[in-house]
Amino acid sequence: MAHRPIITLTTDFGLQDHFVGTLKGVILDIVPNAEIVDICHSIQPFDILDGTLTIAQAYKYFPNRTIHLVVVDPGVGGARRPIIASTETHHFVAPDNGVLSSVYGEETGIQVRHITAGHYFAQPLSNTFHARDIFAPVAAYLAKGIDVSKLGPGINDYVRFNLPQPTSSGENTWSGIVLKADRFGNLITNISPQDIPQLFQADPASFSICIAGREITRRKASYSEGTPGDLFAIAGSMGYLEIASNQASAAEILGVSKGTELTLILRDGES
Amino acid sequence: MAHRPIITLTTDFGLQDHFVGTLKGVILDIVPNAEIVDICHSIQPFDILDGTLTIAQAYKYFPNRTIHLVVVDPGVGGARRPIIASTETHHFVAPDNGVLSSVYGEETGIQVRHITAGHYFAQPLSNTFHARDIFAPVAAYLAKGIDVSKLGPGINDYVRFNLPQPTSSGENTWSGIVLKADRFGNLITNISPQDIPQLFQADPASFSICIAGREITRRKASYSEGTPGDLFAIAGSMGYLEIASNQASAAEILGVSKGTELTLILRDGES
Amino acid sequence: MAHRPIITLTTDFGLQDHFVGTLKGVILDIVPNAEIVDICHSIQPFDILDGTLTIAQAYKYFPNRTIHLVVVDPGVGGARRPIIASTETHHFVAPDNGVLSSVYGEETGIQVRHITAGHYFAQPLSNTFHARDIFAPVAAYLAKGIDVSKLGPGINDYVRFNLPQPTSSGENTWSGIVLKADRFGNLITNISPQDIPQLFQADPASFSICIAGREITRRKASYSEGTPGDLFAIAGSMGYLEIASNQASAAEILGVSKGTELTLILRDGES
Repeated sequence: MAHRPIITLTTDFGLQDHFVGTLKGVILDIVPNAEIVDICHSIQPFDILDGTLTIAQAYKYFPNRTIHLVVVDPGVGGARRPIIASTETHHFVAPDNGVLSSVYGEETGIQVRHITAGHYFAQPLSNTFHARDIFAPVAAYLAKGIDVSKLGPGINDYVRFNLPQPTSSGENTWSGIVLKADRFGNLITNISPQDIPQLFQADPASFSICIAGREITRRKASYSEGTPGDLFAIAGSMGYLEIASNQASAAEILGVSKGTELTLILRDGES
Repeated sequence: MAHRPIITLTTDFGLQDHFVGTLKGVILDIVPNAEIVDICHSIQPFDILDGTLTIAQAYKYFPNRTIHLVVVDPGVGGARRPIIASTETHHFVAPDNGVLSSVYGEETGIQVRHITAGHYFAQPLSNTFHARDIFAPVAAYLAKGIDVSKLGPGINDYVRFNLPQPTSSGENTWSGIVLKADRFGNLITNISPQDIPQLFQADPASFSICIAGREITRRKASYSEGTPGDLFAIAGSMGYLEIASNQASAAEILGVSKGTELTLILRDGES
Repeated sequence: MAHRPIITLTTDFGLQDHFVGTLKGVILDIVPNAEIVDICHSIQPFDILDGTLTIAQAYKYFPNRTIHLVVVDPGVGGARRPIIASTETHHFVAPDNGVLSSVYGEETGIQVRHITAGHYFAQPLSNTFHARDIFAPVAAYLAKGIDVSKLGPGINDYVRFNLPQPTSSGENTWSGIVLKADRFGNLITNISPQDIPQLFQADPASFSICIAGREITRRKASYSEGTPGDLFAIAGSMGYLEIASNQASAAEILGVSKGTELTLILRDGES
């Protein structure tokens, strides 16, 4: 038996208005057996980086043939194009503003199309709610079985940005930033095993992280290993080094949030 | 193959408690193949106007035969009646306190019944959670196939209020109000094309909106057309004139919210 | 026709990150026809009591064979065990930290197993997101039909705490506390009909509740019976005595929240 087609939603629409409910109505009216899954609607308003971090963390866990709607769209109604990016296993329907950059970074052989098949759009077309009038209908028709090639021509000049990378700022010294603070106040840095593998190995190198006037020199294997209230580093589940505390918010303790800079010094041979 | 029956939920229950989860359990226990869709649970507590604006914006996008549960119910346990309002295509299960007023305003031939069939209610019946004990079971049995006529007698004296309308306050001058601020801080006014069509046409008439000591004289076609930080009017996706800004919150810039009054002056022939 | 297996989610993950979306992807990848139902993701971070109150209020309304994922897990990655608790009708997958205490309190013949079947876990296994790597996969495989006995051995020494009980502090005098404030600001006390049945009967005994310097002596049958702004007691839908107001937040009026103590004096024969 064929499974129901899955459509996920990742938006900055919040949950206080009718926006998300309306999207679901549009989708179910076109493809009543769709399985609609909320990934997140609390992307910071207009924050394309937050959007791309979120979809990148979630999409790969979904089954093949899942269709992901990703709408963080400050340029709605303007010149930016609606696009569909397809890998061998997933489709992503989104505005062409870089919100899929993390997906482009993780997938090879991705094919991006400019959605020009206006007969799938709602009429009349608003200038302010393309998720309702363009992205949701397109995702729904795709779930219903139309071929992606009917949606529009392939393009290569789609918008793509690089996530902020840690930069070497001296011998064994790096400058990094906080990509986001999560619900628990853990600070997700932009430092990954690709950048500084010594920090992520079982017996990590000695290090010093300076952030907001505090120095952090310990890595813990789990949150609960830390002393409540103390700050430590940890290899987080998102694939980045995190600054955390045990049952407390590192973000609150440090008074910092997304975008805060940090300096990391690796002390060779002192591990 | 018959599709799963769809039941939508619009409430002021928030997401911090067990309330919404409990409703879903009640429904699935009666009709396990129901498709339950959250429209919104962040209606302002007890705010019937906010509730009716939200369901009005979402319901029409759902497939025929959808059942909408709409519970903003400050009178729970008191004298207000539980009702079911049926159009040719949708059912609405709600308390009789006006929360369906927008639906009554948009639909003709609506039939409203007082739900008296107590054998469908949970026993014992609480006085404080009729969504769990009355509205959800009724919606679920309806989705299961019982005929609406079994639920209770038709009534004509159901509660209905008119949404606040803009009023003419002089030649070419109107007084309006802000119906709500949305997630992005856009201010949804109560001015629609039915009131002042000249504001919504492709080449709009010249106008001046005074609100919170500021004057707004420009209409933009899309949010991104505006200069970031500036205020402008826009024909919003809800069908009303909105006061907005580009990637900024008009509500914050103006320091206003729902209920704030505004004056609109139309400058004939100056467009 | 067999119904889709239902998996409910109760967590402290919030809705601002990818966490919940990722869980849903993991589950659907293993069991694509699962019906995933959010009970609540706004459990206070790390708050096991809040978690157990919430699942206790919701689980019993779900159909037989529902699988409940309950993840409030400050000890993730540490020594605490992953467990599955099974009644005749429901399964609960959770960390062994007492978050199922309310379930243990309401169910007899519950069987608890330590989940040791590591071949069902994700590899590599993170130390910080066991909901993704352990609890969700186990719940999904269970929904897919594996027998619970394959998950690990039965245990009897699982963690269980008692909910705070009102204590007698003199003749006809009790000390209680506020278990939580709900979305509407109703204060849920820990006083139940088992403790003081006279408060819950149709014609309640006279009483006086002292909390935050205020005295409350009235019980109302419904919220709307109260004068707006006044405080009163009410027999709440959670099975506890609540302190409430009509269309206002008792929590705000009193300036109190969870954990606040109260004194209740019963005035025999004065009812």
